[in-house]
Amino acid sequence: MDEATTTALLQAVAAGAVTPAEAAQRLKRLDVEDVGFARIDHHRSLRKGFPEVIYGSGKTPEQIATIAERLAAAGQTVLATRCKGADFEAVRERVPDAVYHPVPRCIVAVRASPPRAPGTVLVATGGTTDIPVAEEAALTAELTGSTVERLWDVGVAGIHRLLANRERLLEANALVVVAGMEGALPSVVGGLVDRPVIAVPTSIGYGAAFGGIAALLGMLTSCAPGILVVNIDNGFGAGYAAGMINRMAGVTGP
Amino acid sequence: MDEATTTALLQAVAAGAVTPAEAAQRLKRLDVEDVGFARIDHHRSLRKGFPEVIYGSGKTPEQIATIAERLAAAGQTVLATRCKGADFEAVRERVPDAVYHPVPRCIVAVRASPPRAPGTVLVATGGTTDIPVAEEAALTAELTGSTVERLWDVGVAGIHRLLANRERLLEANALVVVAGMEGALPSVVGGLVDRPVIAVPTSIGYGAAFGGIAALLGMLTSCAPGILVVNIDNGFGAGYAAGMINRMAGVTGP
Amino acid sequence: MDEATTTALLQAVAAGAVTPAEAAQRLKRLDVEDVGFARIDHHRSLRKGFPEVIYGSGKTPEQIATIAERLAAAGQTVLATRCKGADFEAVRERVPDAVYHPVPRCIVAVRASPPRAPGTVLVATGGTTDIPVAEEAALTAELTGSTVERLWDVGVAGIHRLLANRERLLEANALVVVAGMEGALPSVVGGLVDRPVIAVPTSIGYGAAFGGIAALLGMLTSCAPGILVVNIDNGFGAGYAAGMINRMAGVTGP
Amino acid sequence: MDEATTTALLQAVAAGAVTPAEAAQRLKRLDVEDVGFARIDHHRSLRKGFPEVIYGSGKTPEQIATIAERLAAAGQTVLATRCKGADFEAVRERVPDAVYHPVPRCIVAVRASPPRAPGTVLVATGGTTDIPVAEEAALTAELTGSTVERLWDVGVAGIHRLLANRERLLEANALVVVAGMEGALPSVVGGLVDRPVIAVPTSIGYGAAFGGIAALLGMLTSCAPGILVVNIDNGFGAGYAAGMINRMAGVTGP
Amino acid sequence: MDEATTTALLQAVAAGAVTPAEAAQRLKRLDVEDVGFARIDHHRSLRKGFPEVIYGSGKTPEQIATIAERLAAAGQTVLATRCKGADFEAVRERVPDAVYHPVPRCIVAVRASPPRAPGTVLVATGGTTDIPVAEEAALTAELTGSTVERLWDVGVAGIHRLLANRERLLEANALVVVAGMEGALPSVVGGLVDRPVIAVPTSIGYGAAFGGIAALLGMLTSCAPGILVVNIDNGFGAGYAAGMINRMAGVTGP
Amino acid sequence: MDEATTTALLQAVAAGAVTPAEAAQRLKRLDVEDVGFARIDHHRSLRKGFPEVIYGSGKTPEQIATIAERLAAAGQTVLATRCKGADFEAVRERVPDAVYHPVPRCIVAVRASPPRAPGTVLVATGGTTDIPVAEEAALTAELTGSTVERLWDVGVAGIHRLLANRERLLEANALVVVAGMEGALPSVVGGLVDRPVIAVPTSIGYGAAFGGIAALLGMLTSCAPGILVVNIDNGFGAGYAAGMINRMAGVTGP
Amino acid sequence: MDEATTTALLQAVAAGAVTPAEAAQRLKRLDVEDVGFARIDHHRSLRKGFPEVIYGSGKTPEQIATIAERLAAAGQTVLATRCKGADFEAVRERVPDAVYHPVPRCIVAVRASPPRAPGTVLVATGGTTDIPVAEEAALTAELTGSTVERLWDVGVAGIHRLLANRERLLEANALVVVAGMEGALPSVVGGLVDRPVIAVPTSIGYGAAFGGIAALLGMLTSCAPGILVVNIDNGFGAGYAAGMINRMAGVTGP
Amino acid sequence: MDEATTTALLQAVAAGAVTPAEAAQRLKRLDVEDVGFARIDHHRSLRKGFPEVIYGSGKTPEQIATIAERLAAAGQTVLATRCKGADFEAVRERVPDAVYHPVPRCIVAVRASPPRAPGTVLVATGGTTDIPVAEEAALTAELTGSTVERLWDVGVAGIHRLLANRERLLEANALVVVAGMEGALPSVVGGLVDRPVIAVPTSIGYGAAFGGIAALLGMLTSCAPGILVVNIDNGFGAGYAAGMINRMAGVTGP
Repeated sequence: MDEATTTALLQAVAAGAVTPAEAAQRLKRLDVEDVGFARIDHHRSLRKGFPEVIYGSGKTPEQIATIAERLAAAGQTVLATRCKGADFEAVRERVPDAVYHPVPRCIVAVRASPPRAPGTVLVATGGTTDIPVAEEAALTAELTGSTVERLWDVGVAGIHRLLANRERLLEANALVVVAGMEGALPSVVGGLVDRPVIAVPTSIGYGAAFGGIAALLGMLTSCAPGILVVNIDNGFGAGYAAGMINRMAGVTGP
Repeated sequence: MDEATTTALLQAVAAGAVTPAEAAQRLKRLDVEDVGFARIDHHRSLRKGFPEVIYGSGKTPEQIATIAERLAAAGQTVLATRCKGADFEAVRERVPDAVYHPVPRCIVAVRASPPRAPGTVLVATGGTTDIPVAEEAALTAELTGSTVERLWDVGVAGIHRLLANRERLLEANALVVVAGMEGALPSVVGGLVDRPVIAVPTSIGYGAAFGGIAALLGMLTSCAPGILVVNIDNGFGAGYAAGMINRMAGVTGP
Repeated sequence: MDEATTTALLQAVAAGAVTPAEAAQRLKRLDVEDVGFARIDHHRSLRKGFPEVIYGSGKTPEQIATIAERLAAAGQTVLATRCKGADFEAVRERVPDAVYHPVPRCIVAVRASPPRAPGTVLVATGGTTDIPVAEEAALTAELTGSTVERLWDVGVAGIHRLLANRERLLEANALVVVAGMEGALPSVVGGLVDRPVIAVPTSIGYGAAFGGIAALLGMLTSCAPGILVVNIDNGFGAGYAAGMINRMAGVTGP
Repeated sequence: MDEATTTALLQAVAAGAVTPAEAAQRLKRLDVEDVGFARIDHHRSLRKGFPEVIYGSGKTPEQIATIAERLAAAGQTVLATRCKGADFEAVRERVPDAVYHPVPRCIVAVRASPPRAPGTVLVATGGTTDIPVAEEAALTAELTGSTVERLWDVGVAGIHRLLANRERLLEANALVVVAGMEGALPSVVGGLVDRPVIAVPTSIGYGAAFGGIAALLGMLTSCAPGILVVNIDNGFGAGYAAGMINRMAGVTGP
Repeated sequence: MDEATTTALLQAVAAGAVTPAEAAQRLKRLDVEDVGFARIDHHRSLRKGFPEVIYGSGKTPEQIATIAERLAAAGQTVLATRCKGADFEAVRERVPDAVYHPVPRCIVAVRASPPRAPGTVLVATGGTTDIPVAEEAALTAELTGSTVERLWDVGVAGIHRLLANRERLLEANALVVVAGMEGALPSVVGGLVDRPVIAVPTSIGYGAAFGGIAALLGMLTSCAPGILVVNIDNGFGAGYAAGMINRMAGVTGP
Repeated sequence: MDEATTTALLQAVAAGAVTPAEAAQRLKRLDVEDVGFARIDHHRSLRKGFPEVIYGSGKTPEQIATIAERLAAAGQTVLATRCKGADFEAVRERVPDAVYHPVPRCIVAVRASPPRAPGTVLVATGGTTDIPVAEEAALTAELTGSTVERLWDVGVAGIHRLLANRERLLEANALVVVAGMEGALPSVVGGLVDRPVIAVPTSIGYGAAFGGIAALLGMLTSCAPGILVVNIDNGFGAGYAAGMINRMAGVTGP
Repeated sequence: MDEATTTALLQAVAAGAVTPAEAAQRLKRLDVEDVGFARIDHHRSLRKGFPEVIYGSGKTPEQIATIAERLAAAGQTVLATRCKGADFEAVRERVPDAVYHPVPRCIVAVRASPPRAPGTVLVATGGTTDIPVAEEAALTAELTGSTVERLWDVGVAGIHRLLANRERLLEANALVVVAGMEGALPSVVGGLVDRPVIAVPTSIGYGAAFGGIAALLGMLTSCAPGILVVNIDNGFGAGYAAGMINRMAGVTGP
Repeated sequence: MDEATTTALLQAVAAGAVTPAEAAQRLKRLDVEDVGFARIDHHRSLRKGFPEVIYGSGKTPEQIATIAERLAAAGQTVLATRCKGADFEAVRERVPDAVYHPVPRCIVAVRASPPRAPGTVLVATGGTTDIPVAEEAALTAELTGSTVERLWDVGVAGIHRLLANRERLLEANALVVVAGMEGALPSVVGGLVDRPVIAVPTSIGYGAAFGGIAALLGMLTSCAPGILVVNIDNGFGAGYAAGMINRMAGVTGP
């Protein structure tokens, strides 16, 4: 439950739209809610500015749906990543307004909207096959309050495709650069802009790509300063951090 | 040559303190200066907000000194990392006001000062042996215009040492968290704050630490969102990015 | 055949309930029973305090069922790990009272019960997806005579969830801490308690988690003393050792 | 400061041997003492039963000596591992009764003695070259209150050397088994005893030993149940945990 | 075509049972037979004492069948390893007397029988799940003229199972020891016998077994002299070499 | 659009067969064509001598078909690698004359033919199972204008099979040598010829072949000079480079 | 002994400058010369177009000097790589006109000069620290008959430094691109030119650069076609192959 | 103490040259002699046909000398591998007739000579730098009773050097093939002979040779049957096993 929601709840109580008992019930859930197989960290949205996100891989549809239901019931936006169609079916039964995004494989149900950040986050990919990871980043950044620019298939083997978009690169407050194979794109982008570049290696490639290790190592050892790296295929983490950085523009201190 | 320097130069010309010919000479150097073994990217401070930094390892003292001299001559701040005493001796002959910082092993000669960013960057370490890397980060962040808070030896094996400093963590605009061995500190810090956490794995440890691989993998797979990772022992890169993020606070858009 | 069973058998002979010939036959099996594809180590329960455990993976249902039958026939408790439904079908035909535990994927048929140890074993997980491995540990510790406390989803990204359970941690004689991804939970727990912490890395995670390697390395290089590590996903081994340690409380010497 | 020391301090106050002000000073140090480059966790001996141990590698002699001095001043036993002669010289100037153990390369200054545990810890090695790591384990177990049996050079290539000592193996409450190369000794020992076996891989060997990786992997995948593994060359961690387990014998519950 | 076959062919010509033209045709095939996708090395049986063996994995059933047919037509024994049922169906249509061995997944059609070697090859396994690889070794050794002793499930966690068979170990001219997980069995066997021990790591195990790497490294770094290692799961190679060594007993020189 | 096509287009305009507007439209496409999920680099054939090639793996059939259609519409030859049957179905609907090569799994639709290079490229394999990768190389070299000689199954275990073809090796302008397992063939070939040898490791093999790593490392560390290596299974890259080298014969300068 | 030398020798015989006996002696050496610790492959210059090259690392100065002496005595150019000063001292005593190149650490004594190839080889580096490897490549290419263009410090973090030299890239017949860290430079260069690009990863970098592995993997998985890779730091191999390719320009067939 | 020594001792007693008490003393030592830091396995020569060998690396000169003295005193041949000059100085003081072999870095003192085996062991190397490892193998084979043929520098890049020695290869009873870099030599040799080939990878090479891993993997995945592999640089193990195999020729059964 983020601050806006807390304020809204208290205003609703003042206005008589919510009884104090109901409000108390909701606030109590702010702490940790134990549902047996999970302890839902309702407090996180207060601490981190965004609710706990459900990592769907390895959880049963039933588990995903239960957590989604409790988050939604607490007035928190639901974001579940790495979900299959069966996961969505289970969630939709409990959270009817949930929506499935098939390319990034995410389930979303928006509740409290975060304030819009003034600038933009640019998400770029080296190739077409990097798009699912990039869309996970873009969706996450959007949900956390940022406007997102998408720039697909600007890999370094045809450097003119990237350079033709130099202006768009320079306009962003934070950049997420998604690439597989040798993962060279963040180095080139990082040499052109003066804002943080979050590099996302993808598992695209074969042989010595080693499921994203080549790209990961390339990004970690980039000769361009200011490159920050997340895990292989971790579009969510990149979008989350990019949104966090973008929200800082306009902020005047701690 | 950063914007402030360019402006100052032009004002000096207007004031007659610098001849147009001399100014033209200096501006020409803005492009790339070829010194045989290197092409100094004088243009970088304009593009990236900070001049090219000299990575000392693998360069001869003569090479380091030559690049430092040209940067200083162009009115750009010199920062050379991973330098030994012999490197410093060579630099001092050409840039007499250069200073050596023995803990992070850096050579510095300040020229144009960047504008001070309003907030702070916090640099924390898991242990005492991580301090050299952390000081490289802190020094870099300071040179790029940020105020730095230092918090040493707050590793997770004595979690009360970290929790006792929770307020300081919450006050920073960007956090650099430096840890070796299992590298768990960024995960715990990342769960407490709503600002970007830049995780720096160090090569501290033995056996299965594998020269920092254990910490690196741990940071990449952190269960806390918003963790961004740089290369093993890359204090410079972390401090650079943290300063970049901190400078964004107060900025109102692209 | 553990000591209790041996004593019970001899008492049964004394009471005339079992013929000496039948008892001799059973005792002979105590050594090693060769069933062609396996040599069943009936002697192990005497040596180790618990019968041989069947590792189901890679064995045919027929092989698992044959070994289970012989163990049960010798009065020994059957525990088969990593078993599929088809394995259970084969076992149930020969050992009708066998039970299948679907979450940890174990087959159990209790015969001689070990003496109850006085204290407790605590089994904790970092997340929901670690539960199957944790349940394998818990089931094993219970079968070997320990009372087990379960504490799910207390990962370090929300450290307050763990600290709220500090008392339960301190009450255990031995702790099994199960975590994937960066595997940081054992380090934090190890800093809070003065009993052995058995760390179990899980294969949960993606990318640089490398199927549990990140967690494994993190646990091996933990900065907290007293952390002992088992193989990735080896809930059985952790539960077995934790039970062994817990049984030592109350023991007065060799 | 362990419990015995706390009690002794309070008795000394009662007896007038220590002034209340002095005692208060000492107790205040129980929390965390910030010496700039380190936060000494004086509270650890209360939490963990043994004071913070100094990991010498990567620290300067000056840093080691400062921490040792503060621990000793607080009445806590000093144990510093992985120390060179120069480290010892620095420590001895501040803690004159400190002793250097050259084989395990440890510095020790005993203050408050822990209560003696009733049983024994057995430390065994596969070969002669494993002895330094084994002595680190033995010394640690002794300092934490256990009697230690040493059994050197009983590797599996001459299995009769081990079997001839079977009785000694069976008498121990906890076993530390140290081996390099293929690291097979813990598996064989683990099949013979019913107490926890702590396996320590060493970096002994060449080629495919990969600095201890072969032994580490072998111990993690041991076919004998009840094997618990620590980091390569981590004699300290093994001795610490073995002492912790041995102290449990005679304990009657939490 | 091995020597016996060549001799038999020439005798058949002498006896008029084969025309010289037909014999010439067969002998010509001794060189290399090009079937488009493969060059069958008919000469190998003369050079190596056994015909070319078909490695089935990655070949189509049609390709396997074609090579098998040509070998059989040239009077050479067919051995195809790593074959599925569909491969066998294709072979049987062309070589009707071919037989499928399901446990080691081999197809065999015996033609010229090699001379029997006087001694025996012993094949042992650490566990039940190693049997398929061990049977591939045993079958290969038998086809190349050796008598094979099988000793299953004598892993080191119950060392008495191995020691009870010490006599059988000492009687063999060559030993093939097959083990997964930590792969410690060859070290113990190698310490007991004075004949070559061929160690075969298997991909049995999970987690840090890394598909046989743990066993492979353990065997390569064995502290027992005289251990020779083949690839993970390479039963064929081990049986082939063991047969080759066994055939040497009785030989009196080059 | 390669030079020949450009010239042909202009001649067609001169001849009135194509309107200037249509030609302008086609030429405009020479730059980059944005189809949403991809930026087709029509300029590449001019820069590199061959159009952009579609790497099919990870793309949807719809995406492959769209790119193929646009390339074909621009008069460029279509080559799509790593395609399944479903990919071909989608392409054929849009480019009816497309052809599927099942062994190398490539889709081809020839448009502008490159000029024939005078010499030949030889493609050799160590074994039968390497043929699919080798055919990808051969097909690519043929499409880019070279005549290709195929030499299958000449692995080093029967070195006479290779030496019997020494003349063919010496006649080629560039050699592509494809091998899995230990990948020794390029070293032997490289010692025999004075033209560049492009080594292609394949993922053929098991165990320590590690999906082609053994062959890759072997080729990179070859003791024969002049060996150039491409990624595991990268037949396309090898054939592309071999064709490029072969086209240089007859060229008289830049 | 290359063809030119052979011809020159025969002409000298015809002219009476060399006796037939002396010539016969020299020609006999063409085969293999056994000097005890080495078999010098004098035949190689005929087969490969350049004499055997001495890889100095791991050889004693005495061994290097002996081989150099024999090569020089046979009229063959001496190139010894990876040599220290002591190696050169030993060589100079036997081959007085030998020259030491300290940057690439090579010893050279020119004998028969190969014919000059018409075009040029371009050698480029990402940074200053890559120059020693690049100079090894340049020296080798020069010795084998090519003119070499050098282009230092054009790494991708300042892409304008590379693009400013686009014309020079396009003029070369073969390109050697040397880079450490993430090794991205060959991908960008490969996208700009239509000639073979030989990528040389260097061991420059730290942490996740893993001694050149990051660069190696990046180059192997490059998204630009026509990239060919040699071993880490293998400047010699790259220069050798580039020279071989450059010599092909002007050649009209096999 | 091998059989010949035992017999000789008993004959000496019968002849009165040794007193029964002295003989009893010597025989008692046959079991295991505990010298504190080591348990000398005097029984090994009886079990394995050769005494325990001292692996010098990691042992102090004092430790090596003590073990050597005890072995020599028991009439057993001393072989200590991986010894430095200082080790030899210490040994020579206690075993005056000890000899140091500098190339393989071994200390030898011959006592009881094993019977000579009838055939020969051939030891071959790929290059000059492999000779130290090969000499360790050759020395070991000689000490254990075999005649050794040496064949240096016959690597596959000049295959004619090997083929010119084909006869020598065919004459050996066992072959040790030592090679670094890509380690291809055993595959080629293995295709030519019908005797066991023991492949020894060496740590020779750089970059992707990874200290012998490339050669090790290449040998393990060899396409030639009958290749047996030992650890990187393990000349001792290879020579030991080759001698063992060679001794079998002439043996008529178990």
